[in-house]
Amino acid sequence: MREKIIAASIELFEQNGFSETSIQDIVDALGVTKGTFYYYFKSKEELLMDIHLRYIEGLLREQQRIINDGRRSVREKLYAIVYMLIHNVERQGRQARIFFREMKHLNEEHLQKVKEKRDLFRYQLQALIEDGMKSGELRRDLSPSIAALTVLGAANWSYHWFRPDGGLTDAEVAKQMITILIDGMGPAS
Amino acid sequence: MREKIIAASIELFEQNGFSETSIQDIVDALGVTKGTFYYYFKSKEELLMDIHLRYIEGLLREQQRIINDGRRSVREKLYAIVYMLIHNVERQGRQARIFFREMKHLNEEHLQKVKEKRDLFRYQLQALIEDGMKSGELRRDLSPSIAALTVLGAANWSYHWFRPDGGLTDAEVAKQMITILIDGMGPAS
Repeated sequence: MREKIIAASIELFEQNGFSETSIQDIVDALGVTKGTFYYYFKSKEELLMDIHLRYIEGLLREQQRIINDGRRSVREKLYAIVYMLIHNVERQGRQARIFFREMKHLNEEHLQKVKEKRDLFRYQLQALIEDGMKSGELRRDLSPSIAALTVLGAANWSYHWFRPDGGLTDAEVAKQMITILIDGMGPAS
Repeated sequence: MREKIIAASIELFEQNGFSETSIQDIVDALGVTKGTFYYYFKSKEELLMDIHLRYIEGLLREQQRIINDGRRSVREKLYAIVYMLIHNVERQGRQARIFFREMKHLNEEHLQKVKEKRDLFRYQLQALIEDGMKSGELRRDLSPSIAALTVLGAANWSYHWFRPDGGLTDAEVAKQMITILIDGMGPAS
Protein backbone atom coordinates (compact mmCIF):
# COMPACT_ATOMS: atom_id res chain seq x y z
CA MET A 1 0.00 0.00 0.00
CA ARG A 2 2.87 2.35 0.82
CA GLU A 3 4.10 1.95 -2.78
CA LYS A 4 0.59 2.50 -4.14
CA ILE A 5 0.20 5.72 -2.16
CA ILE A 6 3.52 6.98 -3.48
CA ALA A 7 2.66 6.06 -7.07
CA ALA A 8 -0.79 7.70 -6.94
CA SER A 9 0.62 10.84 -5.31
CA ILE A 10 3.36 11.23 -7.91
CA GLU A 11 0.71 11.10 -10.61
CA LEU A 12 -1.52 13.67 -8.87
CA PHE A 13 1.36 15.99 -7.91
CA GLU A 14 2.54 16.03 -11.49
CA GLN A 15 -0.90 16.64 -12.94
CA ASN A 16 -2.16 19.22 -10.48
CA GLY A 17 0.81 20.37 -8.43
CA PHE A 18 1.66 19.54 -4.83
CA SER A 19 -0.32 22.39 -3.24
CA GLU A 20 -3.42 21.66 -5.27
CA THR A 21 -3.48 17.98 -4.31
CA SER A 22 -5.10 17.10 -0.98
CA ILE A 23 -4.70 13.90 1.04
CA GLN A 24 -8.38 13.36 0.24
CA ASP A 25 -7.57 13.40 -3.50
CA ILE A 26 -4.86 10.81 -2.95
CA VAL A 27 -7.01 8.41 -0.95
CA ASP A 28 -9.95 8.90 -3.33
CA ALA A 29 -7.75 7.89 -6.25
CA LEU A 30 -6.94 4.64 -4.41
CA GLY A 31 -10.37 3.98 -2.93
CA VAL A 32 -9.00 3.86 0.63
CA THR A 33 -9.57 5.97 3.77
CA LYS A 34 -7.49 8.79 5.18
CA GLY A 35 -6.62 6.46 8.05
CA THR A 36 -4.73 4.28 5.61
CA PHE A 37 -2.72 7.29 4.45
CA TYR A 38 -1.85 8.30 8.02
CA TYR A 39 -0.78 4.76 8.82
CA TYR A 40 2.11 5.22 6.38
CA PHE A 41 2.82 8.98 6.37
CA LYS A 42 2.50 11.67 9.02
CA SER A 43 1.63 14.32 6.43
CA LYS A 44 1.60 15.15 2.74
CA GLU A 45 4.90 16.93 3.25
CA GLU A 46 6.50 13.78 4.71
CA LEU A 47 5.31 11.87 1.66
CA LEU A 48 6.90 14.48 -0.61
CA MET A 49 10.17 14.12 1.29
CA ASP A 50 9.98 10.38 0.85
CA ILE A 51 9.61 10.82 -2.93
CA HIS A 52 12.57 13.22 -3.03
CA LEU A 53 14.85 11.03 -0.90
CA ARG A 54 14.12 7.83 -2.83
CA TYR A 55 14.85 9.62 -6.07
CA ILE A 56 18.18 11.11 -5.07
CA GLU A 57 19.30 8.05 -3.07
CA GLY A 58 18.70 5.83 -6.08
CA LEU A 59 20.84 8.13 -8.22
CA LEU A 60 23.60 8.28 -5.59
CA ARG A 61 23.82 4.49 -5.30
CA GLU A 62 24.09 4.14 -9.06
CA GLN A 63 26.66 6.95 -9.33
CA GLN A 64 28.79 5.27 -6.64
CA ARG A 65 28.67 1.98 -8.51
CA ILE A 66 29.83 3.68 -11.71
CA ILE A 67 32.66 5.62 -10.05
CA ASN A 68 33.96 2.55 -8.19
CA ASP A 69 34.21 0.47 -11.36
CA GLY A 70 37.99 0.22 -11.79
CA ARG A 71 37.78 -1.08 -15.36
CA ARG A 72 36.22 2.11 -16.72
CA SER A 73 38.03 5.24 -17.92
CA VAL A 74 36.91 8.68 -16.73
CA ARG A 75 35.30 9.25 -20.11
CA GLU A 76 33.35 6.01 -19.78
CA LYS A 77 32.28 6.90 -16.27
CA LEU A 78 31.11 10.36 -17.38
CA TYR A 79 29.16 8.73 -20.18
CA ALA A 80 27.59 6.26 -17.73
CA ILE A 81 26.54 9.10 -15.39
CA VAL A 82 25.03 11.20 -18.19
CA TYR A 83 23.28 8.12 -19.56
CA MET A 84 21.91 7.30 -16.11
CA LEU A 85 20.47 10.80 -15.69
CA ILE A 86 18.78 10.81 -19.10
CA HIS A 87 17.62 7.22 -18.78
CA ASN A 88 16.15 8.11 -15.44
CA VAL A 89 14.16 10.95 -16.97
CA GLU A 90 12.82 8.45 -19.47
CA ARG A 91 12.01 5.81 -16.89
CA GLN A 92 10.89 8.02 -14.03
CA GLY A 93 9.90 11.25 -15.77
CA ARG A 94 7.27 12.06 -13.18
CA GLN A 95 9.54 11.67 -10.17
CA ALA A 96 12.18 13.74 -11.96
CA ARG A 97 9.77 16.60 -12.61
CA ILE A 98 8.44 16.56 -9.06
CA PHE A 99 12.00 16.39 -7.78
CA PHE A 100 12.95 19.59 -9.59
CA ARG A 101 9.70 21.53 -9.24
CA GLU A 102 8.25 20.83 -5.82
CA MET A 103 11.34 21.15 -3.65
CA LYS A 104 10.12 24.46 -2.20
CA HIS A 105 7.30 22.65 -0.42
CA LEU A 106 9.64 20.68 1.80
CA ASN A 107 10.13 21.97 5.33
CA GLU A 108 13.51 23.37 6.32
CA GLU A 109 14.81 20.18 7.97
CA HIS A 110 13.75 17.91 5.10
CA LEU A 111 15.00 20.38 2.53
CA GLN A 112 18.44 20.29 4.14
CA LYS A 113 18.48 16.50 4.00
CA VAL A 114 17.63 16.45 0.29
CA LYS A 115 20.03 19.30 -0.51
CA GLU A 116 22.92 17.49 1.19
CA LYS A 117 22.34 14.49 -1.04
CA ARG A 118 22.02 16.59 -4.17
CA ASP A 119 25.26 18.32 -3.26
CA LEU A 120 26.91 14.97 -2.69
CA PHE A 121 25.94 13.90 -6.22
CA ARG A 122 27.46 17.08 -7.60
CA TYR A 123 30.69 16.84 -5.59
CA GLN A 124 31.21 13.19 -6.51
CA LEU A 125 30.93 14.17 -10.15
CA GLN A 126 33.38 17.00 -9.55
CA ALA A 127 35.83 14.63 -7.82
CA LEU A 128 35.63 12.30 -10.84
CA ILE A 129 36.47 15.22 -13.13
CA GLU A 130 39.40 16.18 -10.88
CA ASP A 131 40.65 12.58 -11.10
CA GLY A 132 40.47 12.84 -14.88
CA MET A 133 42.46 16.07 -14.80
CA LYS A 134 45.14 14.47 -12.62
CA SER A 135 45.41 11.37 -14.79
CA GLY A 136 45.61 13.47 -17.97
CA GLU A 137 42.32 12.18 -19.37
CA LEU A 138 40.86 15.70 -19.09
CA ARG A 139 42.44 19.11 -19.64
CA ARG A 140 43.61 20.91 -16.53
CA ASP A 141 42.84 24.54 -17.31
CA LEU A 142 39.14 24.39 -16.41
CA SER A 143 37.39 24.85 -13.09
CA PRO A 144 36.32 21.33 -11.99
CA SER A 145 33.30 22.92 -10.33
CA ILE A 146 32.06 24.66 -13.50
CA ALA A 147 32.84 21.52 -15.51
CA ALA A 148 30.71 19.40 -13.13
CA LEU A 149 27.84 21.89 -13.26
CA THR A 150 28.00 22.05 -17.07
CA VAL A 151 27.75 18.25 -17.32
CA LEU A 152 24.95 18.14 -14.74
CA GLY A 153 23.03 20.96 -16.40
CA ALA A 154 23.22 19.46 -19.88
CA ALA A 155 22.03 16.05 -18.60
CA ASN A 156 19.44 17.21 -16.06
CA TRP A 157 17.88 19.71 -18.46
CA SER A 158 16.70 16.71 -20.47
CA TYR A 159 13.74 16.45 -18.09
CA HIS A 160 12.38 19.49 -19.94
CA TRP A 161 12.62 17.96 -23.38
CA PHE A 162 13.54 14.29 -23.55
CA ARG A 163 10.75 12.09 -24.91
CA PRO A 164 11.26 8.34 -25.31
CA ASP A 165 9.41 8.57 -28.63
CA GLY A 166 11.44 11.54 -29.86
CA GLY A 167 13.61 9.91 -32.53
CA LEU A 168 16.85 9.38 -30.57
CA THR A 169 17.13 6.86 -27.73
CA ASP A 170 18.45 7.85 -24.31
CA ALA A 171 21.73 6.07 -25.11
CA GLU A 172 22.16 8.01 -28.37
CA VAL A 173 21.37 11.33 -26.70
CA ALA A 174 23.90 10.56 -23.93
CA LYS A 175 26.53 9.60 -26.51
CA GLN A 176 26.15 12.87 -28.43
CA MET A 177 26.15 14.87 -25.21
CA ILE A 178 29.38 13.26 -23.99
CA THR A 179 30.97 13.83 -27.40
CA ILE A 180 30.13 17.53 -27.08
CA LEU A 181 31.28 17.79 -23.47
CA ILE A 182 34.57 15.91 -23.90
CA ASP A 183 35.52 16.48 -27.54
CA GLY A 184 33.68 19.77 -28.12
CA MET A 185 31.46 21.07 -30.91
CA GLY A 186 34.41 22.71 -32.64
CA PRO A 187 35.91 21.23 -35.82
CA ALA A 188 38.41 18.38 -35.36
CA SER A 189 41.82 20.00 -35.11
CA MET B 1 1.78 50.91 -10.49
CA ARG B 2 1.66 48.09 -13.05
CA GLU B 3 5.41 47.67 -12.62
CA LYS B 4 5.10 47.76 -8.84
CA ILE B 5 2.43 45.04 -8.88
CA ILE B 6 4.65 42.88 -11.06
CA ALA B 7 7.70 43.43 -8.84
CA ALA B 8 5.81 42.68 -5.61
CA SER B 9 4.20 39.57 -7.13
CA ILE B 10 7.52 38.19 -8.33
CA GLU B 11 8.86 38.51 -4.83
CA LEU B 12 5.83 36.82 -3.25
CA PHE B 13 5.60 34.06 -5.88
CA GLU B 14 9.23 33.21 -5.34
CA GLN B 15 8.98 33.20 -1.56
CA ASN B 16 5.69 31.38 -1.16
CA GLY B 17 4.82 29.89 -4.53
CA PHE B 18 2.18 31.01 -7.01
CA SER B 19 -0.71 28.97 -5.55
CA GLU B 20 0.02 30.08 -2.00
CA THR B 21 0.01 33.79 -2.91
CA SER B 22 -3.39 35.49 -3.06
CA ILE B 23 -4.27 38.76 -4.77
CA GLN B 24 -4.93 40.01 -1.24
CA ASP B 25 -1.30 39.23 -0.30
CA ILE B 26 -0.08 41.19 -3.32
CA VAL B 27 -2.17 44.30 -2.65
CA ASP B 28 -1.36 44.14 1.08
CA ALA B 29 2.35 44.18 0.26
CA LEU B 30 1.80 47.38 -1.73
CA GLY B 31 -0.75 49.02 0.56
CA VAL B 32 -3.30 49.35 -2.25
CA THR B 33 -6.79 47.91 -2.82
CA LYS B 34 -7.87 44.92 -4.88
CA GLY B 35 -9.52 47.39 -7.25
CA THR B 36 -6.08 48.69 -8.16
CA PHE B 37 -4.96 45.17 -8.99
CA TYR B 38 -7.98 44.50 -11.20
CA TYR B 39 -7.44 47.79 -13.03
CA TYR B 40 -4.23 46.32 -14.43
CA PHE B 41 -4.82 42.56 -14.50
CA LYS B 42 -7.91 40.41 -15.00
CA SER B 43 -6.57 37.69 -12.72
CA LYS B 44 -3.52 36.35 -10.92
CA GLU B 45 -3.05 33.96 -13.81
CA GLU B 46 -2.98 36.83 -16.32
CA LEU B 47 -0.31 38.49 -14.20
CA LEU B 48 1.73 35.27 -14.23
CA MET B 49 1.47 35.14 -18.02
CA ASP B 50 2.66 38.72 -18.20
CA ILE B 51 5.74 37.81 -16.12
CA HIS B 52 6.46 34.81 -18.35
CA LEU B 53 6.02 36.69 -21.62
CA ARG B 54 8.19 39.66 -20.59
CA TYR B 55 10.92 37.30 -19.54
CA ILE B 56 11.04 35.24 -22.73
CA GLU B 57 10.42 38.21 -25.04
CA GLY B 58 13.37 40.05 -23.51
CA LEU B 59 15.58 37.03 -24.12
CA LEU B 60 14.34 36.61 -27.69
CA ARG B 61 15.06 40.27 -28.57
CA GLU B 62 18.57 39.98 -27.20
CA GLN B 63 19.19 36.66 -28.96
CA GLN B 64 18.05 38.16 -32.26
CA ARG B 65 20.42 41.08 -31.82
CA ILE B 66 23.34 38.71 -31.17
CA ILE B 67 22.56 36.43 -34.12
CA ASN B 68 22.14 39.35 -36.55
CA ASP B 69 25.52 40.83 -35.67
CA GLY B 70 27.49 40.13 -38.85
CA ARG B 71 30.87 40.91 -37.26
CA ARG B 72 30.71 38.01 -34.82
CA SER B 73 31.77 34.40 -35.45
CA VAL B 74 29.46 31.53 -34.49
CA ARG B 75 31.68 30.86 -31.48
CA GLU B 76 31.34 34.47 -30.37
CA LYS B 77 27.60 34.37 -30.86
CA LEU B 78 27.30 31.17 -28.82
CA TYR B 79 29.38 32.77 -26.10
CA ALA B 80 27.15 35.87 -26.14
CA ILE B 81 23.99 33.74 -25.85
CA VAL B 82 25.37 31.64 -22.97
CA TYR B 83 26.59 34.80 -21.25
CA MET B 84 23.18 36.42 -21.69
CA LEU B 85 21.40 33.44 -20.09
CA ILE B 86 23.73 33.32 -17.08
CA HIS B 87 23.82 37.09 -16.72
CA ASN B 88 20.06 37.06 -16.77
CA VAL B 89 19.96 34.57 -13.91
CA GLU B 90 22.21 36.92 -11.99
CA ARG B 91 20.21 40.02 -12.81
CA GLN B 92 16.72 38.56 -12.75
CA GLY B 93 17.10 35.43 -10.64
CA ARG B 94 13.56 35.64 -9.34
CA GLN B 95 11.92 35.94 -12.74
CA ALA B 96 14.08 33.08 -13.98
CA ARG B 97 13.02 30.79 -11.14
CA ILE B 98 9.35 31.67 -11.56
CA PHE B 99 9.70 31.18 -15.30
CA PHE B 100 10.94 27.63 -14.87
CA ARG B 101 8.86 26.56 -11.87
CA GLU B 102 5.41 28.07 -12.20
CA MET B 103 4.66 27.38 -15.83
CA LYS B 104 2.11 24.67 -14.93
CA HIS B 105 -0.19 27.34 -13.47
CA LEU B 106 -0.74 29.03 -16.82
CA ASN B 107 -3.96 28.19 -18.61
CA GLU B 108 -3.79 26.20 -21.84
CA GLU B 109 -3.97 29.19 -24.19
CA HIS B 110 -1.34 31.20 -22.31
CA LEU B 111 0.88 28.17 -21.92
CA GLN B 112 0.84 27.69 -25.69
CA LYS B 113 1.87 31.32 -26.21
CA VAL B 114 4.82 31.00 -23.83
CA LYS B 115 5.83 27.59 -25.19
CA GLU B 116 5.92 28.91 -28.74
CA LYS B 117 8.36 31.62 -27.70
CA ARG B 118 10.51 29.19 -25.72
CA ASP B 119 10.61 26.90 -28.74
CA LEU B 120 11.55 29.85 -30.93
CA PHE B 121 14.53 30.57 -28.68
CA ARG B 122 15.63 26.96 -28.95
CA TYR B 123 15.21 26.75 -32.72
CA GLN B 124 17.07 30.00 -33.31
CA LEU B 125 19.97 28.60 -31.30
CA GLN B 126 19.77 25.40 -33.32
CA ALA B 127 19.78 27.36 -36.60
CA LEU B 128 22.90 29.20 -35.43
CA ILE B 129 24.60 25.86 -34.73
CA GLU B 130 23.56 24.60 -38.18
CA ASP B 131 25.10 27.73 -39.72
CA GLY B 132 28.31 26.97 -37.84
CA MET B 133 28.29 23.42 -39.18
CA LYS B 134 27.81 24.66 -42.74
CA SER B 135 30.57 27.25 -42.48
CA GLY B 136 32.97 24.72 -40.95
CA GLU B 137 33.18 26.52 -37.61
CA LEU B 138 31.55 23.50 -35.94
CA ARG B 139 31.87 19.79 -36.58
CA ARG B 140 29.16 18.23 -38.73
CA ASP B 141 28.70 14.80 -37.18
CA LEU B 142 26.45 15.96 -34.32
CA SER B 143 22.70 16.41 -34.17
CA PRO B 144 22.11 20.20 -34.22
CA SER B 145 19.07 19.62 -32.06
CA ILE B 146 20.96 17.75 -29.31
CA ALA B 147 23.78 20.31 -29.56
CA ALA B 148 21.31 23.19 -29.04
CA LEU B 149 19.68 21.42 -26.06
CA THR B 150 23.08 20.69 -24.52
CA VAL B 151 24.08 24.37 -24.73
CA LEU B 152 20.69 25.49 -23.41
CA GLY B 153 20.74 22.97 -20.57
CA ALA B 154 24.23 23.88 -19.42
CA ALA B 155 23.40 27.61 -19.41
CA ASN B 156 19.84 27.45 -18.09
CA TRP B 157 20.75 25.06 -15.29
CA SER B 158 22.75 27.91 -13.78
CA TYR B 159 19.50 29.20 -12.28
CA HIS B 160 19.88 26.32 -9.81
CA TRP B 161 23.38 27.22 -8.71
CA PHE B 162 24.76 30.53 -10.00
CA ARG B 163 25.30 33.08 -7.24
CA PRO B 164 26.75 36.52 -8.05
CA ASP B 165 28.89 36.21 -4.90
CA GLY B 166 30.09 32.71 -5.72
CA GLY B 167 33.71 33.41 -6.70
CA LEU B 168 33.42 33.47 -10.50
CA THR B 169 31.62 36.25 -12.38
CA ASP B 170 28.90 35.49 -14.91
CA ALA B 171 31.34 36.33 -17.73
CA GLU B 172 33.95 33.89 -16.39
CA VAL B 173 31.39 31.12 -15.95
CA ALA B 174 30.14 31.69 -19.52
CA LYS B 175 33.72 31.62 -20.84
CA GLN B 176 34.51 28.29 -19.19
CA MET B 177 31.21 26.83 -20.32
CA ILE B 178 31.79 27.80 -23.95
CA THR B 179 35.32 26.40 -23.77
CA ILE B 180 33.85 23.08 -22.62
CA LEU B 181 31.05 23.10 -25.20
CA ILE B 182 33.20 24.08 -28.19
CA ASP B 183 36.69 22.78 -27.35
CA GLY B 184 35.67 19.97 -24.97
CA MET B 185 36.96 18.82 -21.60
CA GLY B 186 39.30 16.30 -23.20
CA PRO B 187 43.06 16.91 -23.33
CA ALA B 188 44.34 19.14 -26.15
CA SER B 189 45.11 16.81 -29.05
